[in-house]
Amino acid sequence: MIRTHDAGTLRASDAGTTVTLAGWVARRRDHGGVIFVDLRDASGVVQVVFREEDAHALRNEFCVKVVGEVNTRPAGNENPDLATGEIEVVASELTVLSEAAPLPLPVDDTITASDDLRLKYRYLDLRRSGPANALRLRSRANQIAREILHARDFNEIETPTLTRSTPEGARDFLVPVRLQPGTWYALPQSPQLFKQLLMVAGMERYYQIARCYRDEDFRADRQPEFTQLDIEMSFVTQDDIIELGEEIVSRLWSELADYQVQLPIPRITWTDAMNRYGSDKPDLRYGVELVELTDYLRGTAFRVFAGAIDAGGYVGAVVMPGGASQTRKELDGWQDWAKARGARGLAYVVLDAETGEAKGPVAKNLSAEHLSGLADVVGAKPGDAVFFAAANERREAQELLGAARIEIAKRAKLIDESAWAFCWVVDAPMFEKTDDGGWTAVHHPFTSPNDEWIDNFETAPDQALAYAYDIVVNGNEIGGGSVRIHRADVQSRVFELLGITPDEAADKFGFLLEAFKYGPPPHAGIALGWDRTCMLLSGNESIREVIAFPKTRGGFDPLTTAPTPITSQQRLEAGIDAKPKAAAGAPGTDGQAAPVQHSS
Amino acid sequence: MIRTHDAGTLRASDAGTTVTLAGWVARRRDHGGVIFVDLRDASGVVQVVFREEDAHALRNEFCVKVVGEVNTRPAGNENPDLATGEIEVVASELTVLSEAAPLPLPVDDTITASDDLRLKYRYLDLRRSGPANALRLRSRANQIAREILHARDFNEIETPTLTRSTPEGARDFLVPVRLQPGTWYALPQSPQLFKQLLMVAGMERYYQIARCYRDEDFRADRQPEFTQLDIEMSFVTQDDIIELGEEIVSRLWSELADYQVQLPIPRITWTDAMNRYGSDKPDLRYGVELVELTDYLRGTAFRVFAGAIDAGGYVGAVVMPGGASQTRKELDGWQDWAKARGARGLAYVVLDAETGEAKGPVAKNLSAEHLSGLADVVGAKPGDAVFFAAANERREAQELLGAARIEIAKRAKLIDESAWAFCWVVDAPMFEKTDDGGWTAVHHPFTSPNDEWIDNFETAPDQALAYAYDIVVNGNEIGGGSVRIHRADVQSRVFELLGITPDEAADKFGFLLEAFKYGPPPHAGIALGWDRTCMLLSGNESIREVIAFPKTRGGFDPLTTAPTPITSQQRLEAGIDAKPKAAAGAPGTDGQAAPVQHSS
Repeated sequence: MIRTHDAGTLRASDAGTTVTLAGWVARRRDHGGVIFVDLRDASGVVQVVFREEDAHALRNEFCVKVVGEVNTRPAGNENPDLATGEIEVVASELTVLSEAAPLPLPVDDTITASDDLRLKYRYLDLRRSGPANALRLRSRANQIAREILHARDFNEIETPTLTRSTPEGARDFLVPVRLQPGTWYALPQSPQLFKQLLMVAGMERYYQIARCYRDEDFRADRQPEFTQLDIEMSFVTQDDIIELGEEIVSRLWSELADYQVQLPIPRITWTDAMNRYGSDKPDLRYGVELVELTDYLRGTAFRVFAGAIDAGGYVGAVVMPGGASQTRKELDGWQDWAKARGARGLAYVVLDAETGEAKGPVAKNLSAEHLSGLADVVGAKPGDAVFFAAANERREAQELLGAARIEIAKRAKLIDESAWAFCWVVDAPMFEKTDDGGWTAVHHPFTSPNDEWIDNFETAPDQALAYAYDIVVNGNEIGGGSVRIHRADVQSRVFELLGITPDEAADKFGFLLEAFKYGPPPHAGIALGWDRTCMLLSGNESIREVIAFPKTRGGFDPLTTAPTPITSQQRLEAGIDAKPKAAAGAPGTDGQAAPVQHSS
Repeated sequence: MIRTHDAGTLRASDAGTTVTLAGWVARRRDHGGVIFVDLRDASGVVQVVFREEDAHALRNEFCVKVVGEVNTRPAGNENPDLATGEIEVVASELTVLSEAAPLPLPVDDTITASDDLRLKYRYLDLRRSGPANALRLRSRANQIAREILHARDFNEIETPTLTRSTPEGARDFLVPVRLQPGTWYALPQSPQLFKQLLMVAGMERYYQIARCYRDEDFRADRQPEFTQLDIEMSFVTQDDIIELGEEIVSRLWSELADYQVQLPIPRITWTDAMNRYGSDKPDLRYGVELVELTDYLRGTAFRVFAGAIDAGGYVGAVVMPGGASQTRKELDGWQDWAKARGARGLAYVVLDAETGEAKGPVAKNLSAEHLSGLADVVGAKPGDAVFFAAANERREAQELLGAARIEIAKRAKLIDESAWAFCWVVDAPMFEKTDDGGWTAVHHPFTSPNDEWIDNFETAPDQALAYAYDIVVNGNEIGGGSVRIHRADVQSRVFELLGITPDEAADKFGFLLEAFKYGPPPHAGIALGWDRTCMLLSGNESIREVIAFPKTRGGFDPLTTAPTPITSQQRLEAGIDAKPKAAAGAPGTDGQAAPVQHSS
């Protein structure tokens, strides 16, 4: 080692010791004849005192080696904000290891810079304590998860990333194959099929912190490559996976966010979550629950509500505490908010803070009887506002109210930002209707119906429930999984309901179905979105903060300027424009590839 | 859990306990009215006894749940070869969890099957103990490496796999970018540039078990994607990395191969390795060292040797103990062996077992004086054979002798297959001559010259040495690394010697050079070839054995049949045929991307 000590670890007890330090010039202050330098390394910062003539050339972010003696600071000069604040190092030797040009991005925790600039100079950005600590936290999170899983006899197994294009919802990234021109690998959207194959293989307990790839349009906070903590177990039930998930989550939050998760984490059914919070990932840091008014308002003359009720739909409401005090402009703002979400608007009444009388545009459309009982039914008090939604599809109206609920919490400042509210959302529906009247799998077609529905899901596909579970914290889904189907008869019936013919099934996931012919065990799994989990643990608001070299929107990397055009030579060599050979079957795809030989 | 106990853990002390087991039918034996089944799960095997009428339908590899009582086996029926051999489970309940069709690959440790068949049915192959244990060993190897690195404050950091095409020797795999049509990502050949950026970023200690990609022609045992344990440290010297490497290797071999590596591992210079073993990855399990004869044979009339000596080249020899007893056919076989390697042949003499007299085709070309002293010079005894090589390029002749040395060890059975012989090969040359008289970097152009050469490598580029080191075991290079250049002046001089113009350097690794303007620390690293390391630890002879789903030659996966053709729709969407926009500079590539703002 070039150094004998880590700068940030020096204490008063080291006084008198001669130390060799190495790090960066974080700050320099000249005091007539003496120069004070904050020397920073990965462990922290220490003050180094130079004679002016020795250190006049030092500039910010020079990388230096310093030999000096640890002295306690003169009384009154201690810095209680600094772990090393009781001492300073009086330098006797200085070596400049490398110089720094003027900095395009100051290494200063108090500087706000644009994402583009931060990412272009990510190596300077990461010298700041916030960004560096986010990566260190992520490393610790990996370590904690692995400790738990190894203690439970899990095997860490790497699955291929150059694999076959499979239908998992998003587009695949593709890779041309030079050695088999005209054919392409796909980068995996998840290790799902491989981890199920590992269960068929009898590995029983698999995990991987796995890189996954989805070629999606860049909304919000997506990255083309992302990471999940991927887990699969054999011979388990939903409760076993949930118990494991709870140990992981509680250890992470305890050690990295200093928060003790109350176990067991409450479970809420998917239907309850939709009914009460208008979301399948409810934020439970605040109340503000939805109230269904379909029955209460039956018979109303107000066409917007009556139409939905008559169509067998849904009318509901959510209360904004104190919402009656909003200005006209604020109330109009809600209409804009609703329209931005694709709704026609957001009906509301406000309850007079003194009299409790309902006012506002919807009030005059409701009967006196409906109005008089409204506050009680929805749980509103004088001074509150009540927002309504109505639709022929229950889910559509609930989701609007659920979004309004979140917005209410923000505007009415109902969120305790220091709180952590966890829940499992369980009993998710198996199927949802497609536009053409068929059914599609809510999760993936290998998700198992629960015991109640496994023998009769065809009788009411819209009500059939799956052994599928998501873990949610503060309104963020950080993980999800399911029990998988392992019975061939059940899988066939699910395919049939989904309108997937045997030929289509063979084409799409033939190798998995083939594997399932040979004694597949009951199995279940979960994947935790690792970027998001670490983002929350580190108190950040973007997953980019916990990724060493993230991409901006559009998948651009300001540092390397990837992606780039390729040369015609590369294009030719990679076989990008080669025609695939006639589909005579790739080697080994049909039947037995070679004879089996008994050796002993 | 569906089971209460793991089958392989039951012992005589469990007798009387009612257990629920779940696993696979490994073997079934019918004994009139009673059926014995070996039930296998991940923990091992236990014998289960069924009444015939309960279990007649069971076939191999059915997945079953069994409730039964643990009984000690009747005296004389114990099976000492089985950990559970003192007991059996008498079944009271049987549930078939899933059935198995007739097996295309029997789940039997004694069966040898073709690679294609094994990989097509990898999920059956992995039910066998050998393949399954190889993956379990690999998981343990990961865990051991991580324990060591976390105890030393390393951060595990993921680097991008969708990145920029960089020049690292092999071809890049390419990925079309739909959102920026006409541009492509490359899959990284290693995290080299990113780990160096992390050092500039002050992360100081980085590691990653990293997936890497090289689009190479499939020789021998290559995979298009492979894994390395990738490490980089700041403020360290070569000795620090070597010490860390030794801890990793010694812990791995101690815990996984039951072998105590003697530390420190011997170091041999690259030049010594070539001179003594004709290889930069010498197998030290046996002696058979090369002997240089250039001086000894100076003045010989034998043209093959004289030509090399006069040209300033090299003549050398290697002894095959007992090689004089080879038949004429065996000796001719050596000529074929040499020709297959691209040499013209392999000159030799044999020393008569009785008299020690040198015979054979070369003998008559050497003077009596040269012949009489030969045995002493090369260290041969009567009955040995001496093989010669001569070439104008020392390395060419030494490599031929080095290959002959390995072949001698095999044919003369000199290899102790249970031995482990480790060494570090250090002091590698910086440069080697190119065909056009220029110089190329032996490692990569960021490798640092050692202290002796850093200020004057231009004076004798062929002799200049690098701080580059490889770790070798039994003739396999399992890892290598180097100290990197962190001084801009040294880097410029290296580029100049390599004939890389500043423009070319900027084009190829501009972002790294830019980063190096801002106080880069001294840093060094290593990468261990993880597939090969785990292969050796598990006693296997192919890296495919330690990869869950490996590919065959040509990059084909017999299980998923990847790679596959893509549809014209996929081709269109992915933007494969889009023309890149004119090179006006991608966003954020030039100058400051956005203003810096002081926030507090």
